[in-house]
Amino acid sequence: MRELQPIEFYFEFASPYGYFASVRVDRIAKKHGRTVLWRPIMLGVALNATGSKPNVLVPMKGEYFKRDIARCAKVMNLPFTLPKKMPMNSLSASRAFYWVNEQDTCKAKEFAAAIYHEHWGLGNDMSDIDDVARVAGAIEIDGEKLKAGCQSQMIKDKLRDITMASVDAGVFGSPFIIADEEQFWGHDRLSLLDQWLDAGHW
Amino acid sequence: MRELQPIEFYFEFASPYGYFASVRVDRIAKKHGRTVLWRPIMLGVALNATGSKPNVLVPMKGEYFKRDIARCAKVMNLPFTLPKKMPMNSLSASRAFYWVNEQDTCKAKEFAAAIYHEHWGLGNDMSDIDDVARVAGAIEIDGEKLKAGCQSQMIKDKLRDITMASVDAGVFGSPFIIADEEQFWGHDRLSLLDQWLDAGHW
Repeated sequence: MRELQPIEFYFEFASPYGYFASVRVDRIAKKHGRTVLWRPIMLGVALNATGSKPNVLVPMKGEYFKRDIARCAKVMNLPFTLPKKMPMNSLSASRAFYWVNEQDTCKAKEFAAAIYHEHWGLGNDMSDIDDVARVAGAIEIDGEKLKAGCQSQMIKDKLRDITMASVDAGVFGSPFIIADEEQFWGHDRLSLLDQWLDAGHW
Repeated sequence: MRELQPIEFYFEFASPYGYFASVRVDRIAKKHGRTVLWRPIMLGVALNATGSKPNVLVPMKGEYFKRDIARCAKVMNLPFTLPKKMPMNSLSASRAFYWVNEQDTCKAKEFAAAIYHEHWGLGNDMSDIDDVARVAGAIEIDGEKLKAGCQSQMIKDKLRDITMASVDAGVFGSPFIIADEEQFWGHDRLSLLDQWLDAGHW
């Protein structure tokens, strides 16, 4: 029997659809006995590669997007507040994720959930490392150590390398899930992921 | 009791997700006692307005898109063949739709379904008016009259006017559905449309 690789879950903290996927992806994977690697990325790099812009900045689409994310949250029964600043700068939150992840991958998921809740659930800007450290502190992560960790070259390289590798792997949006080389873009493809994990073919 | 307006279903014949929506939208509307106005548009006009390009021409996204539409069709159990030419030029098919629609709105839906089947089900290019007329002929529409009708200024204006008005109404993709001023972009939002028609609020 071949060994199954973990499912790769790429997401951008500034992406609300990433938030929507984050609350469901592990549960879907678990149903099929699979694990999930969480990988925050700087989506701007991929958007540049495809000549795209963040949804919120695209004419017409931006207005639609704001309504769509509010109703998707409502239908999923998730806390949601439209942030005043969109898109936020996710550099600090993403680096912090990888710093936590080096020590404890479960804690890193908890941290990501806390950042998503703060930004998309409560609408607070999470661009500033001090705010990131505060949210980390509330789930018993040492904020000062986290801030120092985010400045290390190893962590900076980690985020940059994973982001560049994600573009090479074909990631151009958030959320973006790769399972057994099959790609799923958008939280609205999670039911397809579920079917894929069940059957292994279409 | 207020009179309910018809649901507006905007689509581009060159859009596979428009094809996927076209086979379901009337059924969903009917469940809620609603009718649907079908409105093919020249999506390129809206894409220009938002600085976008057809999916198939976007780096990275293009490859993903080809796989995604094939598996969506499979999951929906719909005939599907990737057309050699993408995106096709839908000008003739769209004009022909409005010409048929002037005489018989039901027949126009049948015509649209036939074009979608020929292009996305069988993979044949439908850019040429002679091919459009042939497909129309197979469902007992007079191909020669249709070709003449497509050359009339009234029909040309109709397609242009509806396309321009759709951009003003916020349409930037295909399929795009407007029900009671609520907008739905993508066949993956049809379940939301269903919920909306059921409850009238989120």
